[in-house]
Amino acid sequence: MSTILTGDRPTGPLHLGHYIGSLKKRVKLQQKHQQFVMVADLQALTDNVGNSQKINDNIIEVALDYLSVGIDPKQSTIFLQSLVPELTELTFHYLNLVTLARLERNPTVKSEIQSRNFQRNTPVGFYCYPISQAADITAFKADVVPVGADQKPMIEQTNEIVKTFNRLYKTDVLVTAECLFGECPRLSGIHGKQKMSKSLNNAIFLKDSPELIQKKVKQMYTDPNHLHISDPGKTDGNVVFEYLDIFDENTAELDELKKHYQKGGLGDSKLKQRLSSILIEHLEPIQKIRRELEKDKASLMDSLIASSEKARETAANTLAQVREVMGLRML
Amino acid sequence: MSTILTGDRPTGPLHLGHYIGSLKKRVKLQQKHQQFVMVADLQALTDNVGNSQKINDNIIEVALDYLSVGIDPKQSTIFLQSLVPELTELTFHYLNLVTLARLERNPTVKSEIQSRNFQRNTPVGFYCYPISQAADITAFKADVVPVGADQKPMIEQTNEIVKTFNRLYKTDVLVTAECLFGECPRLSGIHGKQKMSKSLNNAIFLKDSPELIQKKVKQMYTDPNHLHISDPGKTDGNVVFEYLDIFDENTAELDELKKHYQKGGLGDSKLKQRLSSILIEHLEPIQKIRRELEKDKASLMDSLIASSEKARETAANTLAQVREVMGLRML
Repeated sequence: MSTILTGDRPTGPLHLGHYIGSLKKRVKLQQKHQQFVMVADLQALTDNVGNSQKINDNIIEVALDYLSVGIDPKQSTIFLQSLVPELTELTFHYLNLVTLARLERNPTVKSEIQSRNFQRNTPVGFYCYPISQAADITAFKADVVPVGADQKPMIEQTNEIVKTFNRLYKTDVLVTAECLFGECPRLSGIHGKQKMSKSLNNAIFLKDSPELIQKKVKQMYTDPNHLHISDPGKTDGNVVFEYLDIFDENTAELDELKKHYQKGGLGDSKLKQRLSSILIEHLEPIQKIRRELEKDKASLMDSLIASSEKARETAANTLAQVREVMGLRML
Repeated sequence: MSTILTGDRPTGPLHLGHYIGSLKKRVKLQQKHQQFVMVADLQALTDNVGNSQKINDNIIEVALDYLSVGIDPKQSTIFLQSLVPELTELTFHYLNLVTLARLERNPTVKSEIQSRNFQRNTPVGFYCYPISQAADITAFKADVVPVGADQKPMIEQTNEIVKTFNRLYKTDVLVTAECLFGECPRLSGIHGKQKMSKSLNNAIFLKDSPELIQKKVKQMYTDPNHLHISDPGKTDGNVVFEYLDIFDENTAELDELKKHYQKGGLGDSKLKQRLSSILIEHLEPIQKIRRELEKDKASLMDSLIASSEKARETAANTLAQVREVMGLRML
């Protein structure tokens, strides 16, 4: 049995990209492993400090999404990062174990700073977030972290901190973590090219109404050279087919449709109707659970607080071990 | 009545430079103000991570020095930084309020990085310590911070964080602080030129034995051109006279000695004997108290823990206010 840490920044409700890339996997993993699922509000604040209301509002949205897709609070410990202040103290101690040069070599941080156009106006907290992530992972002694391939440098940074700490204090209280890469690549946004992302305005959210799903699927990128129904069309790089490959369970029919499309004579709108129906049908049971849970957000928040307290115990144990080997007095 | 935060990094016992530059002032300030005196072990770790044993060992040394010189636990709240973990969480929140560019403009950090030959191998924690200092100062709502002139940029950084936080969250929970500059300049080390500093091996410690004081005073820098007793000597830049100006209460006699020295005919060794006697006499009552306290270090540590818990309450109150205005849920 492994211990897994995973989670999301509550910058908005979760979308199909999260669902395919991580949520479905978590539902499986929780059956055989100890899984901690973090609503990373403090990490979200590192580049949203002027937007704290948005972060606070989306905590409950993310929690609703988790439960709706089947992350089971009896099997997974869902917790709110800010309710585990031990993570901030661990971060503080780890700051001394990393040099500026090392942090700047981290390619993920580099590209995230570029994509936000931060340059030297990067908030120090954002710059330090790989160290904060190391605190999150090690606090729960997670040995497996499900990540996208682009997140590998973050886990390497964590493991370096673990090794430095253990060597320096002649201990083994911290454990290294392994990446668990996803089987399927990240889902494209509806306009193609870029991956689905809240901030790129190309996402289908798990809570989107059937009408909204239809509208978004209609905007979906297909084959720009497929101008007339009779034209032959490309299925590769065609977002509608990318989605059908994932969600359409009738693979025999889908194969026929692909051939038909490639040959010519099959219109985009017919395919899009098919995809809309499949997505709506797929999300219907998820949204049904969500509607139920939404009726009593207060009690959902209470449960989140209660499970955060449980998570806090684990983190506090690790912090106590860390303080002990550092020779710091116990609180 | 002001609230004052002051303190020292426990990297060694305290010396005459501390005594003249800050300790004597604290003994006065505590009578009229609320004074928090921090043993800054976490800050010391930011550039001593491989040396934590030294830091831990010197906590009690610094506490002994505080009490010996007359910092009164009934009038001042002496506390250990690592026993107030709220300071680390505050630091974490403040990291988002400062940009990399701003931090790098801080001339104090720049010169400290240079003096340690860190360059890009600076530990991130050391680089961030002005932000950690802002947490220390604001946690106690200190409005006065006694500092050397070279520390002014640190207080400016703190006040910027205060203003950014209050503006961002439309609040006034954090208060700005004013520098209280010392009346007397920092004391020179025994070899002249540089200020007295543990790390420069030029310090007379408050706990130095009479023999050691005599030995160190004998090494003291005077006037390198005053080769023979009969030569005229300079009193300016002469460390022995710098110390006599501070510690010799017989100013009439001292004036005579200066004139005699400038004219020629007064030897260094005679002056040094005078200074040694004065220093030994001055430190004798301080060392007597220290010897008493050293007999029961365990009970001194217990008192430090108890007063740290008191300090912690104040910091926890501030943190609760900070969390509230940030919209973070209460713990």
